[in-house]
Amino acid sequence: MKKHIVVIAGDGIGQEVTAVGKQVLEAIAKKYNHEFTYDTALIGHEAIEATGNPIPDETVTKSKASDAILFGAVGHPKYDNDPSAKVRPEQGLLGIRKALGLYANLRPIKLFDELLSASSIKPEILKGADILFFRELTGDVYFGERGRKDDGNTAYDTMIYSRYEVERIVIKAFDAAMTRRKKLCSVDKANVLESSRLWREVVQEIAPRYPEVEVEHQFVDAAAMLLIKDPKRFDVVVTGNLFGDILTDEASQIAGSMGMLASASIGDTTGLYEPIHGSAHDITGKGVANPLASILSVALMLDISFGMKAEAEAVVNAVDSVLKAGFRTRDIADASTPSDKLLGTKDMGDQVLQHLAA
Amino acid sequence: MKKHIVVIAGDGIGQEVTAVGKQVLEAIAKKYNHEFTYDTALIGHEAIEATGNPIPDETVTKSKASDAILFGAVGHPKYDNDPSAKVRPEQGLLGIRKALGLYANLRPIKLFDELLSASSIKPEILKGADILFFRELTGDVYFGERGRKDDGNTAYDTMIYSRYEVERIVIKAFDAAMTRRKKLCSVDKANVLESSRLWREVVQEIAPRYPEVEVEHQFVDAAAMLLIKDPKRFDVVVTGNLFGDILTDEASQIAGSMGMLASASIGDTTGLYEPIHGSAHDITGKGVANPLASILSVALMLDISFGMKAEAEAVVNAVDSVLKAGFRTRDIADASTPSDKLLGTKDMGDQVLQHLAA
Ligand SMILES: CC(C)[C@H](C(=O)O)[C@@H](O)C(=O)O
Ligand SMILES: CC(C)[C@H](C(=O)O)[C@@H](O)C(=O)O
Repeated sequence: MKKHIVVIAGDGIGQEVTAVGKQVLEAIAKKYNHEFTYDTALIGHEAIEATGNPIPDETVTKSKASDAILFGAVGHPKYDNDPSAKVRPEQGLLGIRKALGLYANLRPIKLFDELLSASSIKPEILKGADILFFRELTGDVYFGERGRKDDGNTAYDTMIYSRYEVERIVIKAFDAAMTRRKKLCSVDKANVLESSRLWREVVQEIAPRYPEVEVEHQFVDAAAMLLIKDPKRFDVVVTGNLFGDILTDEASQIAGSMGMLASASIGDTTGLYEPIHGSAHDITGKGVANPLASILSVALMLDISFGMKAEAEAVVNAVDSVLKAGFRTRDIADASTPSDKLLGTKDMGDQVLQHLAA
Repeated sequence: MKKHIVVIAGDGIGQEVTAVGKQVLEAIAKKYNHEFTYDTALIGHEAIEATGNPIPDETVTKSKASDAILFGAVGHPKYDNDPSAKVRPEQGLLGIRKALGLYANLRPIKLFDELLSASSIKPEILKGADILFFRELTGDVYFGERGRKDDGNTAYDTMIYSRYEVERIVIKAFDAAMTRRKKLCSVDKANVLESSRLWREVVQEIAPRYPEVEVEHQFVDAAAMLLIKDPKRFDVVVTGNLFGDILTDEASQIAGSMGMLASASIGDTTGLYEPIHGSAHDITGKGVANPLASILSVALMLDISFGMKAEAEAVVNAVDSVLKAGFRTRDIADASTPSDKLLGTKDMGDQVLQHLAA
């Protein structure tokens, strides 16, 4: 198959990890006789520096014309410490999600058995946990009206959902539950928030269409607790943009490390694939970032956007083999990792490539 | 000393656990020669059933006239499954927080060593963790304007903070940090939210007044992850109402169980003391609820509202002794707990009372 991929590496370790992700795409194309072509585009701080705009028009145009996007990260400490900055790297990420209508963010949380000991959570609590998050990605307080009043002394943001926005993500989550263990947990704060009450109404309306799916509702505070206490009770979790942001980062501890977690952002056209980790400026340029989340994002791209199941499986298996062989990046190493198996970004990528070639 | 305490037991297990909390107050009065008088008031579902109002005027009047409030819980599954209910038990809790101006919710997260094994988190990650949360409690999306538009098909809530609201809680948190390990972590989502940018501005403005305190800012998603990955890195954490709700419930796993966590809600006058757990209708009336969070709420009341340090310490020590003696309620038991040490609500309370009397 012919596919055209835009690589948007962005800021910080985004550059280092997408470079490895791209090598994996190249290896897959070679092994399975596909023809993948590539382009690059700017986003975030990098784009601000080059053009003044965190999401140049060209980035949107190229993205729309592609079959899939391999995304790195956005962010820069400079803006984090300057709350008054008007132009911010994150506008690039939020902008592209909105421009491409990527309303469903899929975040699979699954622990590779070899990493059981890398987590701060007890192995017996984790073993067998397998959660698929559906985070709504183009609504909520991320995109509602915000501003200042009262001479700048009062600041507000609007949490807002329309029935239609909730419906389309909830349906995707139910569909996914049907292909899995047929359990759906919807997370909201309906005991306080009106937007959550609409959310819960919609889930209740759609549920009868999926009589085989066992549905539960959890308040976000309880969900944050239960994820750690008993992750195995969850199968598919569907929630809004803000709660999804918080819960999936938290859930990264179930997977041993944020450095292992891939995500797929999908809508009605081109899909975008990115690690859930951020730009991590503290380790940028040191060559120690874990490239596995970017590699696993490639696996999601092959599976979801290109329908290449065997190819996706080959990538996941290669990652699994490398972990089985004992190789670790710093973030997933533990006291028992021998120093010659502690790899940097590039070497970890090379191990995966070798397994793919074999 | 003479003190007048209003007991607002509320819904579900709130009744069972505050009954034990009150016994502990009585024991302390006796032991230390204080004169505590009591009154009761209605809230939540219970108040709706009796008066139609989740927070009757009388409850507010009695509360304002008291020296402290011992609070149970609010909530009822009936409303959770009916998103369109106009009158809800939670309005009672939110109403009393607002009516008494209880803007600072203190939630100490500290693991009793005996419970190291009850948590889903590894003992070596937990040991020594000691966090004091300051959750803002009368602002944010809990109290902003909310509603429906578009024929009910769009729902919104307003996340809103004024400079003054942020200042007073942040100052309380800095003051507390000065009496502890002098570290403050402020949690927000300033890379997206305007209300968070105001929050961060205020923290940055106040920080220079406390040159000895080491300040860090974390985004809420990162904080949710770090709490589990490395709880020991935190000392005092200050955050808004919604993020505080989520993070403190999550952090309950650090303390082994939600059933162990007490909180103090303070403002400019009367303080309110309550477990962080909810009404737990699934175990209501079964006599198995853990009363220790209510007992530890009493300890906070003695300490913060009445300045009775020795009395507060006696309560905490009694809880500690009971745990050391191996007694457990169901929620904090583990495989090694012998069945004769597995106690219900009342027996657990009696153990604490015995230790207090000794
Ligand atoms: C960078 C930030 C705006 C973003 C978000 O909050 O969505 C990130 O945390 C994520 O989860 O992709
Ligand atoms: C019952 C609910 C409204 C409340 C809240 O969200 O504040 C509870 O979760 C809490 O944390 O005290």
